[in-house]
Amino acid sequence: MSEQCELCREDGGEVIHRNDRLRVVLVDDADYPGFCRVIWNAHVAEMSDLPPADRAILMRAVCQVESALREVLQPEKINLASLGNMVPHLHWHVIPRFADDAHFPHPIWAQAVRQTAVEVLAARRALLPALRAAIARHVACEG
Amino acid sequence: MSEQCELCREDGGEVIHRNDRLRVVLVDDADYPGFCRVIWNAHVAEMSDLPPADRAILMRAVCQVESALREVLQPEKINLASLGNMVPHLHWHVIPRFADDAHFPHPIWAQAVRQTAVEVLAARRALLPALRAAIARHVACEG
Repeated sequence: MSEQCELCREDGGEVIHRNDRLRVVLVDDADYPGFCRVIWNAHVAEMSDLPPADRAILMRAVCQVESALREVLQPEKINLASLGNMVPHLHWHVIPRFADDAHFPHPIWAQAVRQTAVEVLAARRALLPALRAAIARHVACEG
Repeated sequence: MSEQCELCREDGGEVIHRNDRLRVVLVDDADYPGFCRVIWNAHVAEMSDLPPADRAILMRAVCQVESALREVLQPEKINLASLGNMVPHLHWHVIPRFADDAHFPHPIWAQAVRQTAVEVLAARRALLPALRAAIARHVACEG
């Protein structure tokens, strides 16, 4: 626990799943409906700061979220990233990418290359209830 | 194997370690000495396309490279990412980040915010022989 760390103080999004080790949150990003983060609860900076068993638990959750995103949103690609340069508290971005999204085929941190049509984004947002259910199902299935 | 895929056709960098499942390559990036990639040998797009045992093997290698980078380069942060929007062949970026690098604290895919001093980059490049040795040692140690 670090008092300066926003991921120690706050959930970091809408919590879809939480256990004693980690939480899965849905990020409220207008351009990326379905963008999730898997956040380790304890204040640790790097994957290699975790014991191997905990790394495995964290990556299993990341892959469960990836599977749920693929199932419900059927994206072109999934992007996974653990950066933490600004918030050095271990968290994984799990991002569904589409050929018509704001940055494709570039990373979402690059300059935007288009604006996705509002009705396309609305259709993806309409799938969020199904995504919440799929994530709950995937994390329950594999423990 | 896909004939259109550059990571099926080519190594994708200087190979530091290779086994039957994956390879670790050193990327020749002028701004990021020590930037490595861990590339799955078979043509697979997503982590969740791999069986769980293979995912674990891949992430173990990613963490071994992370550990070697931390030991030799002592970066401010490690960035891990599996994107693959342009080359949908599973590969992990393992990037040592420094407060004085071209994009810090932003991801390396954002717009550059500075030019790192040439002598600083040269000093980091001078550590690459030690990095090659450390990666070889880490992958040997833990299998």
